[in-house]
Amino acid sequence: MHFMTALEAAWQQRNSLLCVGLDPDPVKFPAHLQGCPDAILEFCKAIVDATADLVCCFKPQIAYFAAHRAEDQLEALIEHIHTAHPDTPVILDAKRGDIGSTAEQYAIEAFERFKADAITVNPYMGRDSVDPYLAYPDKGVILLCRTSNPGGSDLQFLEVDTPKGRMKLYEHVARTVAEDWNASGNCGLVVGATFPAEIARVRELTGDMPLLVPGIGAQGGDIAATLVAGRTAKGGGLMINSSRAVLYAGKDEDFAEAARKVALDTRDAINAHR
Amino acid sequence: MHFMTALEAAWQQRNSLLCVGLDPDPVKFPAHLQGCPDAILEFCKAIVDATADLVCCFKPQIAYFAAHRAEDQLEALIEHIHTAHPDTPVILDAKRGDIGSTAEQYAIEAFERFKADAITVNPYMGRDSVDPYLAYPDKGVILLCRTSNPGGSDLQFLEVDTPKGRMKLYEHVARTVAEDWNASGNCGLVVGATFPAEIARVRELTGDMPLLVPGIGAQGGDIAATLVAGRTAKGGGLMINSSRAVLYAGKDEDFAEAARKVALDTRDAINAHR
Repeated sequence: MHFMTALEAAWQQRNSLLCVGLDPDPVKFPAHLQGCPDAILEFCKAIVDATADLVCCFKPQIAYFAAHRAEDQLEALIEHIHTAHPDTPVILDAKRGDIGSTAEQYAIEAFERFKADAITVNPYMGRDSVDPYLAYPDKGVILLCRTSNPGGSDLQFLEVDTPKGRMKLYEHVARTVAEDWNASGNCGLVVGATFPAEIARVRELTGDMPLLVPGIGAQGGDIAATLVAGRTAKGGGLMINSSRAVLYAGKDEDFAEAARKVALDTRDAINAHR
Repeated sequence: MHFMTALEAAWQQRNSLLCVGLDPDPVKFPAHLQGCPDAILEFCKAIVDATADLVCCFKPQIAYFAAHRAEDQLEALIEHIHTAHPDTPVILDAKRGDIGSTAEQYAIEAFERFKADAITVNPYMGRDSVDPYLAYPDKGVILLCRTSNPGGSDLQFLEVDTPKGRMKLYEHVARTVAEDWNASGNCGLVVGATFPAEIARVRELTGDMPLLVPGIGAQGGDIAATLVAGRTAKGGGLMINSSRAVLYAGKDEDFAEAARKVALDTRDAINAHR
């Protein structure tokens, strides 16, 4: 699967910009799943099967699996998505960032072990820390730019001097990725829904580059403001992530149906502003 | 184990500033280990047992385990270090960085699952992405500051405007960690040996804060320049990492002895400049 091609197709065929984030937290699982073996996998499969026709991609967050010694369940989950819901791209949210020789190992972890179609990467260590992911031209490489958390401003919002003039650090990252790192056309950027003005600026700097936008729902980002700021001329170009609001919509055995309803409402709320 | 206390004790008792990085790459293993089960664990245990009395800490790089589906071997390796070589702190080199709720999961992964004594963390997402690690006051939190790779300059060497005036981004990170994030006294910084001038600047900005210095050996950093730039008034304060030069010093069954010789020579070369 070529990530960018599959993402474009999913945007079109499913008429959805919604990305469901898979952040499984066992303490929030319905009672009937508590303590059962592979509860993480079973929970996530149920969410995936209930929402796959409503999303443009899924985004499992590896920390939630690693904290519970559940890498095998993450492998099985991604295999299930590829098998049961082909053409649904999977972004491994890992935010890796290390020197080239180590980044090669992380790329093997993400693309060959877990068979993700894309990965999130931290740009702090610069170009050669990203090259090993870019070396997989079919895979998506989604760089952190303007993150949705309060501390996102600590570094990303600083004014910096660059060869292209003064700008905010996140603007320099957006510009560098768009102009220098995206030779294979497989890059995207993470821009938080909590900062619509910066989404608009990143869109301005990056043309039609796909933007992964976390921060709606639990983090409080506004859907209308996100669309107005981030949609491309064609009304797309966004992967708008919702995790907790979808995953934990229901607390009982019908949690997957409850998740589907929230996913459907969220997809439609997004489409209302395209 | 309290990381900072154990590190101070190891510096003293072993008269060593050497950190041996455990980056196991099976293709580089001696022939007799090729293809044997748990080869990664056996290789790393042999290196650890041959060098433990010569180091102030060990630094396993998680990517090299994750790429080979070997998290269980990483758990067993750290347990072996804690059991066979007590009071030898273990830094999990993971360079994590994510929003608070996810960082909590990464902290569980590093400190509760793998039982590491310290972790490397990426500062790009700001204070609240680091707080979940700082919440473990006995654990070390070592922030990326000025990394040893060529791309380290892409962002870290930019001039930024801060409330404390104009400085390089890495200087702002060093200052912020030293002045704002280190309330529990459990922070350190990563500064590459390939940039001695910046090591000196970081030392100037951070007092006696422990600095993890990768980049000697395979990456070409100079030991004398590193010591002159980075040693504290007492001639310490450094964890000078060597990985490949130690791990792959020998290619045969005596690889552990060969590793010990390089570790010994490196420790002594470091001590010659304290």
